[in-house]
Amino acid sequence: MNIGIVGLGLIGGSLGLDLRSQGHQVLGVSRREQNCTEAIALGVVDNASVDPAILETAEVVFICTPLAAIASTVEQIVPHLAPSTVLTDVGSVKAPVVEAIAPLWSNFVGGHPMAGKTDSGIEAAVPNLFASKPYVLTPIATTPPEAVQQVEQIARSLQAIIYHCRPDDHDRAVSWISHLPVTISAALIAACMSETDPVVLKLTQQLASSGFRDTSRVGSGNPELGVMMARYNRQELLRSLHHYRHNLEALTALIEQEDWQALEQQLQLTRSWRSQFRIDT
Amino acid sequence: MNIGIVGLGLIGGSLGLDLRSQGHQVLGVSRREQNCTEAIALGVVDNASVDPAILETAEVVFICTPLAAIASTVEQIVPHLAPSTVLTDVGSVKAPVVEAIAPLWSNFVGGHPMAGKTDSGIEAAVPNLFASKPYVLTPIATTPPEAVQQVEQIARSLQAIIYHCRPDDHDRAVSWISHLPVTISAALIAACMSETDPVVLKLTQQLASSGFRDTSRVGSGNPELGVMMARYNRQELLRSLHHYRHNLEALTALIEQEDWQALEQQLQLTRSWRSQFRIDT
Repeated sequence: MNIGIVGLGLIGGSLGLDLRSQGHQVLGVSRREQNCTEAIALGVVDNASVDPAILETAEVVFICTPLAAIASTVEQIVPHLAPSTVLTDVGSVKAPVVEAIAPLWSNFVGGHPMAGKTDSGIEAAVPNLFASKPYVLTPIATTPPEAVQQVEQIARSLQAIIYHCRPDDHDRAVSWISHLPVTISAALIAACMSETDPVVLKLTQQLASSGFRDTSRVGSGNPELGVMMARYNRQELLRSLHHYRHNLEALTALIEQEDWQALEQQLQLTRSWRSQFRIDT
Repeated sequence: MNIGIVGLGLIGGSLGLDLRSQGHQVLGVSRREQNCTEAIALGVVDNASVDPAILETAEVVFICTPLAAIASTVEQIVPHLAPSTVLTDVGSVKAPVVEAIAPLWSNFVGGHPMAGKTDSGIEAAVPNLFASKPYVLTPIATTPPEAVQQVEQIARSLQAIIYHCRPDDHDRAVSWISHLPVTISAALIAACMSETDPVVLKLTQQLASSGFRDTSRVGSGNPELGVMMARYNRQELLRSLHHYRHNLEALTALIEQEDWQALEQQLQLTRSWRSQFRIDT
């Protein structure tokens, strides 16, 4: 199969490595000539170009640009695609992407492979990045079932775990488990740094251990990515923040009221609830 | 040296393993006969008893009971100690412990080895639990320097990293990096579970990945321990929760106002700030 990848970074590059190893012909598109040369040298693509005309023979095209560039990228490439070409993206927010792209290309399927690494860029690309990770597809009423099937088949070949859902439901779910954690984790780091006693601040930094390390990790992630999540999933993030504050206030009230029995019951609940989440990755 | 350990769980047991391997004579005290037998069988102590009279020859005694039991335990054992015996504890909150114990025994040094494991109980005891971990000593004006030296020398022999500070400063620092993370992490789990749409809740649980896993980890820890922290460090925890809410509201306001430039600057700050904390353990 001829498969196009537009945007050759960590996700696009890792996708290319897996698809080439399966025997597909992978055609890359990047805005920068140097990135094209590097992608070929790294074996991520068979061929690459800054010119989207290279996608003429592609049967499926993955848009792997940052969220903010997806719509303009699709506008640039659609004049070069065969009408039967299936288009999909890998953006981490789905409703605004699907709303923008579905009117431009009927054979479009929104997608979100939930895999990543701390490092970014094509140099960070690795094989099997998507294996055993969720890959969410968000078809809508007008999406042709054959297009969904084609993208699903490729996602399945990456050993990913496939989920189908509405774009809105996806955005609400990732707000809970990804965008909300980033925000509350960043607030933790900022709160600790607001300590005005220099002796205590120094001690706080010296004594930080695994509890602080884990709870603060996603609050120190890529700032650009954090802003994109907040920007494109603003309504859902604000909604989950609202509920979060309510829950935090309820816990705080138990501590204020010294209701230790209720606090212990609540901590027993959170302990048992957490085991209902997929937390093995 | 003859060293007593009162309370034979994870911390007391691990301490016994290390001290015996250095050639010290380790005397254990537990409320339960069976725990004494098990401690001897596991090689954690040389001898153990439910009778604190076993501590008569001890030069240093470590109180390794849960926080709530420290004061009553000390009251029970002091009639059996030689006047020169140095007493120390391993409680995770220091001001209330030091306030309660210092009047009962002048040779008392508050201590907090910041090491732990998910598992508890004597079966979970392991050698080298304290190596490369902070060990905080909180002497006060009336603490004899020789007593501090003696405890510090033992802590150093465990390969721990020694810090000295005021009990209040310790409690404020651990509130920031340990007790606050537990609370905000528990609130995250509770908030996610407050999702009322069953389809979205199911999806949330299925898509949870490393961001949720790490941010929610300490919120699903031992509920009893969580309550103890909140109970004994209530004022400091409420203070850090107050500052935390202020910081979270500031981040939320940037998202509400769509001030993406300020949000990116803030996320850049939290990223660089986190590297000032000891996060390698």
